[in-house]
Amino acid sequence: MAHLFSTHCTSIPSPATKMFVKPLNQCSAIVHTSVPFWANRSPRIVLKSQRKRPEKQYVISATATPISQETESKSSAGSHQILNESTSKSKKVMVIGGDGYCGWATALHLSNKGYDVSIVDNLVRRLFDQQLGIDSLTPISSIQNRLRRWKSLSGKTIQLYIGDICDFEFLSEAFKSFEPDSVVHFGEQRSAPYSMIDRSRAVFTQHNNVIGTLNVLFAIKEFREECHLVKLGTMGEYGTPNIDIEEGYITITHNGRTDTLPYPKQASSFYHLSKVHDSNNIAFTCKAWGIRATDLNQGVVYGVRTDETEMHEELCNRFDYDGVFGTALNRFCVQAAVGHPLTVYGKGGQTRGYLDIRDTVQCVELAIANPAKPGEFRVFNQFTEQFSVNDLAGLVTKAGKKFGLDVQTISVPNPRVEAEEHYYNAKHTKLIELGLRPHLLSDSLLDSLLNFAIKFKDRVDKAQIMPNVSWKKIGVKPRTVAI
Amino acid sequence: MAHLFSTHCTSIPSPATKMFVKPLNQCSAIVHTSVPFWANRSPRIVLKSQRKRPEKQYVISATATPISQETESKSSAGSHQILNESTSKSKKVMVIGGDGYCGWATALHLSNKGYDVSIVDNLVRRLFDQQLGIDSLTPISSIQNRLRRWKSLSGKTIQLYIGDICDFEFLSEAFKSFEPDSVVHFGEQRSAPYSMIDRSRAVFTQHNNVIGTLNVLFAIKEFREECHLVKLGTMGEYGTPNIDIEEGYITITHNGRTDTLPYPKQASSFYHLSKVHDSNNIAFTCKAWGIRATDLNQGVVYGVRTDETEMHEELCNRFDYDGVFGTALNRFCVQAAVGHPLTVYGKGGQTRGYLDIRDTVQCVELAIANPAKPGEFRVFNQFTEQFSVNDLAGLVTKAGKKFGLDVQTISVPNPRVEAEEHYYNAKHTKLIELGLRPHLLSDSLLDSLLNFAIKFKDRVDKAQIMPNVSWKKIGVKPRTVAI
Repeated sequence: MAHLFSTHCTSIPSPATKMFVKPLNQCSAIVHTSVPFWANRSPRIVLKSQRKRPEKQYVISATATPISQETESKSSAGSHQILNESTSKSKKVMVIGGDGYCGWATALHLSNKGYDVSIVDNLVRRLFDQQLGIDSLTPISSIQNRLRRWKSLSGKTIQLYIGDICDFEFLSEAFKSFEPDSVVHFGEQRSAPYSMIDRSRAVFTQHNNVIGTLNVLFAIKEFREECHLVKLGTMGEYGTPNIDIEEGYITITHNGRTDTLPYPKQASSFYHLSKVHDSNNIAFTCKAWGIRATDLNQGVVYGVRTDETEMHEELCNRFDYDGVFGTALNRFCVQAAVGHPLTVYGKGGQTRGYLDIRDTVQCVELAIANPAKPGEFRVFNQFTEQFSVNDLAGLVTKAGKKFGLDVQTISVPNPRVEAEEHYYNAKHTKLIELGLRPHLLSDSLLDSLLNFAIKFKDRVDKAQIMPNVSWKKIGVKPRTVAI
Repeated sequence: MAHLFSTHCTSIPSPATKMFVKPLNQCSAIVHTSVPFWANRSPRIVLKSQRKRPEKQYVISATATPISQETESKSSAGSHQILNESTSKSKKVMVIGGDGYCGWATALHLSNKGYDVSIVDNLVRRLFDQQLGIDSLTPISSIQNRLRRWKSLSGKTIQLYIGDICDFEFLSEAFKSFEPDSVVHFGEQRSAPYSMIDRSRAVFTQHNNVIGTLNVLFAIKEFREECHLVKLGTMGEYGTPNIDIEEGYITITHNGRTDTLPYPKQASSFYHLSKVHDSNNIAFTCKAWGIRATDLNQGVVYGVRTDETEMHEELCNRFDYDGVFGTALNRFCVQAAVGHPLTVYGKGGQTRGYLDIRDTVQCVELAIANPAKPGEFRVFNQFTEQFSVNDLAGLVTKAGKKFGLDVQTISVPNPRVEAEEHYYNAKHTKLIELGLRPHLLSDSLLDSLLNFAIKFKDRVDKAQIMPNVSWKKIGVKPRTVAI
């Protein structure tokens, strides 16, 4: 028992301060315009390190109509049928990991839709950037400024609880204070390469994700037993089996008998494995305690703009293009924008499910508005289309031509251990049945994404682009990746 | 990140001392006799708390023939075909958790068979007894005395590394010092009820088991890449599906396509889940790093005597009958011995695989002598017979009659969440194919076990017998079970 919990993550400092922050009620002056801030023609980009703010920084797409109402009526695609004033408007939703890529977009979307939202986050994702020497393509504001801005634009308050859900005392207080009806749990280390950097990151990932989720389950059981857990899983839990992938369960007939069992999982990184562990733990608590849970096995998310984040530059979402946190399509767009060859890992036949971040927020809202029953462990495959890496490279190359870009593609040695040519057919009908109206990957979306990358290309650090984490070379010594 | 690893197990003290202990070379005087110590007719049992030792305490079954040779020729059932002088005698086996019930019997057995054995253990199992106010039916010696006694009897040295495998610095040193060819990993919190006592024990169980196993995998990768991991899993990982249980994998034909995939798991406690997590992690490292591993999905173990542990009272194994660590058949024998009704949980139709502890040690030896190939994740179902709880109660009742015991059976409310009537048919042919010769549950074994329980009945604390951990009532507050 010596050094029980003391030695497995020495590289990650633990801030001692625990803060309960609520957004200020102050309102800043707002300049209205119909041009979204990211389309601003000025070449000057505001870097976080620049102290002086440019003039006319407060730019939103709204008119005198209150933001929340206007946006609700505008952003009807796929979600206007979801809301039911009598059942949803007053619902309290805790978004764990609400400062991250998917979490931030979701928190704003739900707030905009009338949910009473709180964000629980320890902000460690920002620390990862600093420790790895990487940064979002987009300049992102502090969570405090983000929430002040949101309040000033929409009149809506998002409560903020800053702390670590692995600290059960903190989580308990947040639960008892906010009393959520739903918990959307994005609050995990979410990068496969990060989990494969070194032993301490592997251990951190599994500890952080598994224990954090256990704590959420205990908090629900103890303090809010009717609360619906909406947990972000990943399509990567399934791996690439040679049969169709179902949504969570498969009916098997074997030696003359039949049962419906959890779909077999074959995860391929310590990160993906942590999500498998979570799924198994959650399924057990649904059965043993009557927890109501929805596991959203999400595909690879692309895009950056949602109706809410484009309202103001201070609401802008992060956009990762680096080798650790960047995902395929977003990274390709940045590579095309800066004249870097698209980096296809190995043969490029790796096929996965993808979705637009506007569908992420829509799916989460659908899950909340249509909760699982007590004791039900419900699994949705959350993606809209399948692509191979080569498919994506082809699409970006084609889109690049419109911008006069000569996009090259190179194959780099695959840093991962994965099949590069395989069968892949994953079902994804349950969210459609609940009302999802997908934003499929279109030429116009690709144009917009590429335009976005070009807009911010002066912020690109080319040293971050190439993969630098090997599945086979991971070792026990703490590794400083960026140097 | 605040309090990253500091708050989830406050109830379990962490000894600060890390010790590397090697057994002394001293030999005590030995009195030879053909009567094993447990059959000694003296009613006086040596309690650990009694300072004075009885005379003639050093009683072994050996003659002037060196113990190791004699025992090898005696204990041939099922295992004399295993050893191959040229390949096995010099093999170094690290037994993690070698002070526990299965681990101690295994360490002695392998040492006796000519393997060079080390034990890695933090002795936390003994701490659990003290914290829960429970104790082994049998008095057990300290690990240091156990190993000194073994050395004096057999001439064989078992190296001892006392420390926590969650402490990677400690584990690294043990690996680099001992250089194992095989690691047998029993070093986990192994009680389902323990994992369901309270939140901190649930978190401890998953943290301890998952991170400990991750560390073992990293140690093998870094220091001994050819080392074969023999990991103790549990049949409980599978749950009770309505189809036959295969050994680790199942071939599924679905929508016209076929693949062989990991058998779906439905574990039913945080402990059983931790083993599922381990299995998934190990399978991944076999694929990604070429680790060679055997997952032994063991059934419920009964019995206490092995050829080696019965050589001397100081080698005696532990025998748990309490509601937390006691398993069905052993507990029933103790209940029968003290006139306590056999406690069947619910309907008693719960069917599981069982095996004699003499087969546990034989199976582990078979796995070591026939290692998995590099990159292979091999799964064996390690049990010899299936019984329902009602079957076992019937067998003990029948055996009790021979001893003049009026054995009653009562149904107590099931503290677990599990099916009480279900289909159960689990395959277990792979170890038989490797040469396992099972010790099936016989009248004579039951008589012996009952006799053993009667022998030690004055040590029974009836307050420990009833179940006191509820799957549904587990809460977030630290719980002191015994009071």
